[in-house]
Order: sequence, then structure tokens, then C-alpha cells
Amino acid sequence: MNLKDNIDSIVSQIVNEVSKSNYKRSITLSQAKKLAQMVEDKAREIGVNAVVAVSDVSGRPILVECMDDSYIASYDVALNKAYTVVALKMSTITLKGLSQPGESLYGIQFTNNGQIVIFGGGDPLYLGSQLIGGLGVSGGTEEQDTMLSAYGAKVLCDIIN
Amino acid sequence: MNLKDNIDSIVSQIVNEVSKSNYKRSITLSQAKKLAQMVEDKAREIGVNAVVAVSDVSGRPILVECMDDSYIASYDVALNKAYTVVALKMSTITLKGLSQPGESLYGIQFTNNGQIVIFGGGDPLYLGSQLIGGLGVSGGTEEQDTMLSAYGAKVLCDIIN
Amino acid sequence: MNLKDNIDSIVSQIVNEVSKSNYKRSITLSQAKKLAQMVEDKAREIGVNAVVAVSDVSGRPILVECMDDSYIASYDVALNKAYTVVALKMSTITLKGLSQPGESLYGIQFTNNGQIVIFGGGDPLYLGSQLIGGLGVSGGTEEQDTMLSAYGAKVLCDIIN
Amino acid sequence: MNLKDNIDSIVSQIVNEVSKSNYKRSITLSQAKKLAQMVEDKAREIGVNAVVAVSDVSGRPILVECMDDSYIASYDVALNKAYTVVALKMSTITLKGLSQPGESLYGIQFTNNGQIVIFGGGDPLYLGSQLIGGLGVSGGTEEQDTMLSAYGAKVLCDIIN
Repeated sequence: MNLKDNIDSIVSQIVNEVSKSNYKRSITLSQAKKLAQMVEDKAREIGVNAVVAVSDVSGRPILVECMDDSYIASYDVALNKAYTVVALKMSTITLKGLSQPGESLYGIQFTNNGQIVIFGGGDPLYLGSQLIGGLGVSGGTEEQDTMLSAYGAKVLCDIIN
Repeated sequence: MNLKDNIDSIVSQIVNEVSKSNYKRSITLSQAKKLAQMVEDKAREIGVNAVVAVSDVSGRPILVECMDDSYIASYDVALNKAYTVVALKMSTITLKGLSQPGESLYGIQFTNNGQIVIFGGGDPLYLGSQLIGGLGVSGGTEEQDTMLSAYGAKVLCDIIN
Repeated sequence: MNLKDNIDSIVSQIVNEVSKSNYKRSITLSQAKKLAQMVEDKAREIGVNAVVAVSDVSGRPILVECMDDSYIASYDVALNKAYTVVALKMSTITLKGLSQPGESLYGIQFTNNGQIVIFGGGDPLYLGSQLIGGLGVSGGTEEQDTMLSAYGAKVLCDIIN
Repeated sequence: MNLKDNIDSIVSQIVNEVSKSNYKRSITLSQAKKLAQMVEDKAREIGVNAVVAVSDVSGRPILVECMDDSYIASYDVALNKAYTVVALKMSTITLKGLSQPGESLYGIQFTNNGQIVIFGGGDPLYLGSQLIGGLGVSGGTEEQDTMLSAYGAKVLCDIIN
């Protein structure tokens, strides 16, 4: 067996093993901490005391940080945003449009145990095309929260690579 | 007593027994499995990873299947669609029209423990004029889900007979 | 074809139709009203203002009656008893024993959305061996409620036949 | 570069990629269906009408099947068992001992949104030492459910390999 055959064999075994299975990659706690820190630094810059929540690829929270003097209500909001963006694979600002009266997802805010947030401030976390978690930010205006979560989603690549 | 009288007597006893009672027929697990499989095959055909839920004639779930990589949020949505269509004896796309602000059922999405879904993808399951269960599909666009649940309701007869 | 063959053929068709399906018989509203009346008469006799709830074979409530001056809390209790006895196919006084610490069902009172009642006053409603609904009574002592629901389950046959 | 170096380099890249990340493998829907079927066949053998639930490695349900005439209450119980065993990485029969009054986990049945089941019938699903999902069975006595979920956990390897 020559070199190429060997490599092909290895690759094919791995591909086979992975493809018959259901592997999912999640953001790690260490990565989530760095991400939250960057979002909090940005929040501080614009005068917002935010709650920042990060969920894994299954929508389970892995980090929640409440900046001093953030809103008590923001805890639930940020957490649910981090869940929503994974559960529906879209940002909450996109969902906002789809869940207004008459739109295709109007009603989803009532049927999922109150976990679906339909205003800005949540973004799915992608590495390339791979979903690895969710980010929820709450504490400022909707515009500010939307900017902060989009910012977090954007800097994710720098943090991980 | 001749033959015909005998048969008439038997039939009339049975009709009487059944009509003074409250018999309801439900889809069985084995039928539900076949139905879900057909809906999933169709979903795969159009590139949708769907959650498919089937409820019995009382709206209780008897089968839920989540295709790999379906949305997490689709579990609650599909389950509640399968409940909604039995609870109200109409498809969720029909209900959608009735539950918009200003319409006759606007508000039902708030009063029934968050179990009423008001967008497409759920169809009651009828054998002739007899309701025997409900089907909920979630995972694609509203149009796709609506098509998939209507498809399921339509192929039901082939599965059962 | 002679008479006997004809009858056999009819019976076999019916049996076949029913057995490949999933038919369930429920108590009707008219029967439930008579049952509740008898339980309320008995409750009055022993000086209890009871709430009487009757559910169908799927555990859905079909009748709830609150005697004047009954406890407000009894509404939920009676309703949940009527659900519990169908959902588990046993009386709540039997379930009481099984759900104590260390017993085989200890914990079920916490996991089913608070719908499982684990003290006396609920009885499944059987016609012969056929479950057709559930009865929940609340308003007296546990002993009184237990007696009243057992009484209701016992007189059911007289009401229906 | 010779063959061995090449292979080592590939392996080390893969190991590195995976280890700096957080990959989790889940049971697939197709595998879950086979598993549920085997558990249902065994249940039928011993005269039990069971609800069988399978969750993925994050505790989310991916399959629930209710055998005809299973207990209504078994739906919630089976689903929550499938969650519990992943959430705590132990069988519910093991948890039973730990959650009795006076024991180290007594109280967990109250604090986790009613999702923690503390009696037998749930088993984590392991491939070797790797958790890939959870199995919940409800419908028989505690002994029967415990046997059935242990059976499912045991035959998992045959299904997947």
C-alpha cells in the first residue's frame, strides 16, 4: 500500500465514522469567556450595563455574566435570546420581522414555553457555516443590544482561531 | 324470524349500543409510524429537516420524530400543531387567518397554555368524515410545512386501508 | 349461506374492523351529569360541599360542578384527580401508597406538570373491564372524598345500564 | 516525508482540531427508531404497553413512541426519564437511591422544573465510554421499566455497529 492509498484509507474511515453519526461542535467555556469579555468591553464603551449569555450548540446556557447594575429582567432576556438563536438558527432581529402579526412565524412567541425572544440582541454563533452556539445580549436599547450581539458574532472567529 | 330480520336486529343492536355511547377511533402507533416515515421522505426530497408529530383523537401525542439537524424549536412547534388541529378540528393554516388581530379567534394563542399554533404545518387527520388524530410538521418555511402536513393528511387513507 | 354463517360473517367483519383500529369508549355528558348528581346527593347527606369532576377516557374534563360554598382550591384538585385516575388507570388512594418516599412511583408528583394528585378522592370509571373515564371529588376530609369517589365509581353501572 | 510521518501529521492535526473544540456525538433518528423498536418488542413480550423516549446527548427529545393503550401519564414520565439520564449521566434507578429524604440529592426533584425523574426506567446511552443520548421507558411496574431501559442501553452497541 502506498502513501496516497494509506491517507485515502484514513480519511475515508474518518469520513465514514463521522457521517454515519451525528457530531456537533460547541463553543467551549474558555472561548465563551473571551467572547463575553469583548462584548462587555464594547458595552462599557457605549455606556450599557449588559447581561451577556452564551449557549452551546444545543441551546443550553454555558455562560451568563451580568455587568454591575444591569437590569434584573435582562437575565431572563439574555438567556432566552441565547436559546432562541440556536433553536431557530437565526438572529432575534431577523425573527422579529417574521413573528409580527400576519407574518409566517407569528405565534411562535406563545407556543414555546416563553423561551422565544422576538426582538434584537441575539445572534447565532457560526464558525464558517457551522453553528457552534448562541449569544444573547440585554441591557441597552434594542438597537444597542442588536449591535452588541452582532459584534460578538463577528469577532468570534478572531477569538477561536 | 328470517335471515334479513336477524341481521337487521343485530345491526340495530350494535348501532344502538354505539350511538348511546361515545366511541372514538384513534390512529394507532403502527399507522403513525408509517405516516411519519412518508412525511419524512417527502421532507428529505425537498431538503427540509423536519420534526413530525402525530397525536391521537384526544390530542395526546403518540409519536414525535426529529430528523437529524432539525430545529430545536421545532419540537414544541410540531407537537403543539398536532394538538391544535385536533383541539380545534381545523388546519393551522386555516386558524392562522382566524387568529390575526381583529379576527374572530384573535386571542386564542394566549388562553390555551401556549398550545395553540397559528401558522401553517398542522392538519387534522380524517378517515372519511371521522377525525382520528392530528399531524404537526415543523422545520421548513411555512409554505413547506403547510405542504408537508397537507401531504400527510392526504396519504393517510393509503396507509390505513 | 345459512343464517349462522351470515351472522358469523358480520361479527367477524366488525371484530376485524375494530381490532385493527384503536377504538375507545368514553362516558357521555348526559351520563356524567347523572353520576355527578348522585355523588353530590351523597356529599350533601354527609355534610360535604364538594367539587365533582368527570373526565373522558383520554383524561380531558367533560364536566366540573362546584357545590355552593365548596373550597376554591377544590376545583383544581378535583380536576386533577379526574385526570390522574385515567392517566395512571388507578385510584388516587392507591397511588398514594405508591408515591410515598422509597416507593416505586415516588417522584411522579413532581414530573407531570403538577397534574398528578396523590391523595384519596379520585377513581377510574370502569364498565366491566373497560375504562371509560375518571371521577375526581374534593371538598371533605380525605376519607370522605375517597368514599365519595369510590361510591361514584360503584354506581356508574346503574347509571349507564 | 515518509508514510509514517504523514499519517502522524494527519492524526495530530485531527486530534488537535477536535481537542481544542467541544465535539459531541449524538444518537441519530434512524438509530433511535431501531432502538425503540427493540424495546417495544421486548415490552410486548412481557405484556407491557410502554412509552419509549430517546433523547440526544444534550437531553433534547428526538423520538417518542407511545404503544397503543399505554398510560397517558407515561408520556411525560418517559420523556423526562430520557432527559434526566443525560442531565445527570446516571440511570434513574441509581438516582432513586440518591434522592430519597435524607440522601445527598434529595431535593433535585423540586428544583429542575419537574424534569428530574427519580424512579427506575431511564438509562444513559453509552457507546464505550461516550455518552450519546438517553433512553426513557414507562408503562410497566418499576421493575419492568428498569429492565426495559437497561435492555435498551445494552443492545445499543448491536444497533449502531
